[in-house]
Amino acid sequence: MNILVINSGSSSLKYQLYNMTDESVLAKGLVERIGMDSSILNHKPTGKAEVTEVSEILEHNTAIRKVLACLTDKEHGVIESINKIDAVGHRVVHGGEFFKASALVDADAKTKIRQLFDLAPLHNPAAMMGITASEVNMPGVPQVVVFDTAFHQTMPEKAYMYAIPRVLYNKYKVRRYGAHGTSHDFVSKAAAEYLERPLEDLKIITCHIGNGGSVTAVQGGVSVDTSMGMTPLEGLMMGTRSGDLDPAIVPYVMNKEELSVGEVNSMLNKHSGLLAISGVSSDMRDIIDGMEKGEPNSTLAFEMYEYRLRKYIGSYTAAMNGVDAIVFTAGVGENASLLREKLLNNLTFLGIELDAEANKVRSGDPRRISTANSKVQVLVVPTNEELVIARDTHRIVQGING
Amino acid sequence: MNILVINSGSSSLKYQLYNMTDESVLAKGLVERIGMDSSILNHKPTGKAEVTEVSEILEHNTAIRKVLACLTDKEHGVIESINKIDAVGHRVVHGGEFFKASALVDADAKTKIRQLFDLAPLHNPAAMMGITASEVNMPGVPQVVVFDTAFHQTMPEKAYMYAIPRVLYNKYKVRRYGAHGTSHDFVSKAAAEYLERPLEDLKIITCHIGNGGSVTAVQGGVSVDTSMGMTPLEGLMMGTRSGDLDPAIVPYVMNKEELSVGEVNSMLNKHSGLLAISGVSSDMRDIIDGMEKGEPNSTLAFEMYEYRLRKYIGSYTAAMNGVDAIVFTAGVGENASLLREKLLNNLTFLGIELDAEANKVRSGDPRRISTANSKVQVLVVPTNEELVIARDTHRIVQGING
Repeated sequence: MNILVINSGSSSLKYQLYNMTDESVLAKGLVERIGMDSSILNHKPTGKAEVTEVSEILEHNTAIRKVLACLTDKEHGVIESINKIDAVGHRVVHGGEFFKASALVDADAKTKIRQLFDLAPLHNPAAMMGITASEVNMPGVPQVVVFDTAFHQTMPEKAYMYAIPRVLYNKYKVRRYGAHGTSHDFVSKAAAEYLERPLEDLKIITCHIGNGGSVTAVQGGVSVDTSMGMTPLEGLMMGTRSGDLDPAIVPYVMNKEELSVGEVNSMLNKHSGLLAISGVSSDMRDIIDGMEKGEPNSTLAFEMYEYRLRKYIGSYTAAMNGVDAIVFTAGVGENASLLREKLLNNLTFLGIELDAEANKVRSGDPRRISTANSKVQVLVVPTNEELVIARDTHRIVQGING
Repeated sequence: MNILVINSGSSSLKYQLYNMTDESVLAKGLVERIGMDSSILNHKPTGKAEVTEVSEILEHNTAIRKVLACLTDKEHGVIESINKIDAVGHRVVHGGEFFKASALVDADAKTKIRQLFDLAPLHNPAAMMGITASEVNMPGVPQVVVFDTAFHQTMPEKAYMYAIPRVLYNKYKVRRYGAHGTSHDFVSKAAAEYLERPLEDLKIITCHIGNGGSVTAVQGGVSVDTSMGMTPLEGLMMGTRSGDLDPAIVPYVMNKEELSVGEVNSMLNKHSGLLAISGVSSDMRDIIDGMEKGEPNSTLAFEMYEYRLRKYIGSYTAAMNGVDAIVFTAGVGENASLLREKLLNNLTFLGIELDAEANKVRSGDPRRISTANSKVQVLVVPTNEELVIARDTHRIVQGING
């Protein structure tokens, strides 16, 4: 069975075609600048030469058509015809309280995704465009939606409710939803496998830190708390997002600087985080470079980032009354060995013992970076959200077929 | 030396007269409803009958005059004349970055307190009225200001900076300041004394939880982090305050409910917290009553309160890479034994062992509620912010006299 995984942004579309027999990637690629003056399609067929095409792509429908043309092209293609695509899996950011798991796309699912536009005004409409474009161009092919929030729907009320008037939950569903669910799910399962211990017995803290970032407390295989909130703004300090903040700062700054609701959102989401403190970059590699050159703002940015992540690890250890394993994943988590080193050396009270050499190894495989004596196992597990989407799609489509 | 301690609110004035020879309280009292239709003065002279007077008190100047009249009254008084007051100590909420310790009131101090009106628009102007009224009615008597924020001025930059554009710090001094500093200072010192261990060697987490509440990480006797932020809104769930919140909820709700900056502040400060979740009360005693009657909203309010406090304890343990002692103080902290029990039984990973019997004892003295085997000492230490103000005032006035 071949499954096409699609991740639609408002002006972009990422794709990956899997052969589920061996979970191999047949091709992957990215369409950028959809609706802008010159759109770019970058197509990478496995074992063949990469293709880049610049053309006018005004909307997602055209983007999908171009992707399908690439996938079936005589030269750059990897399948004979569109008929060889057995199912499509879509990443959808927000599943609200409707979706506690991945689901087959039907009229009901589409209605619900639309009802959530309000909670994810940038992301859900984009996902909907990807779904519609896929339906138009691959009629009859089953489609599945996989949500960033679904894994966190197991959180108890005490973790997802905010201490604000209940009317805001009743009317607008203001609560914690979290994000990166497919990744937290994937790496926690992979960690249990690596450790050869039953997931049900484990208390795991998963740190998915890339340009965005979130930490999740995974107890017995289910999410019991996570650092992103109603939106992806809450929690860790991120590349350009502020993370946690005295909520009173928002009206204070709006008032002082005469900012609109949109402007303050933009400030906190796009002009804060590592970028604001370092004054240089939102990229951890640049921050570490700056720190190594003795640049005080980069040093502060790094220290804040490490300190705030460390506090979340302490917080979630208390939430679960203990921790068996800590897992690092995503761009920063998988690569920033210096960050992991500083962080873990400040958590020795948990009985963590870092294996300094193992921490420096770079690899695409799951690996342990704590010593044999460490009371808490610390792992680096490369994430693979596309594979989770492909697997979920496979499982659900097999369900309807069998 | 007799010292009068004054705590001025916008429509209230609390006072306490100390004899510093033995730190005994000669009298204390409260003026309420200043500026409203019938003001109430309640005066409690030690060893004499309590007095309650209802009259018109339009401003703080009159309030102070009435207080001085009570203190020197033939019948209810405790001193012969105003001359027996050697110094006045004022509680001031916000000392900003100017005040890292208590200070003598002079022109410079008054200018700085005024410059901070913007950061504490309700509290600092009220404190200023108390200072002016005292100067007018007790000319020549030295006055000292003691700040809620001063103890937290030792926080490192990584703990007090928010990950938002630096211009907000440069222009408006947006940063973490914390509060309840006199209390965190007092109970951490008292804990070290009780444990007969040098404060310099200890990592202590102090939980000052009353109607408002904050947690502080005290390492080597200095505050290294605290849960209240630029304002008292951030941090723990409180009686009527939301505490931590996805900052994006603020503009979202303003937009949905068409709330002004003032209205959203009022919602988050006065209509949130225990009150919003329980729908019943902001008072922990009522919440526990409701929970014991099986009321689900009170149960959720209690669980959220406990859970969020527990996560802060985990967070600050990670901040200090360990903890030697946890201290509970203020109304809820000193009295809510059920809260302490649930909380501590969920922190056994730290090696905490609760002494269930000791936890139930009520007393006005510092006491241990952990067992002899507990790896972390857990204490209940009644706070005494007025005494800290009196002691600081005494020390500073002796300095200028000696």
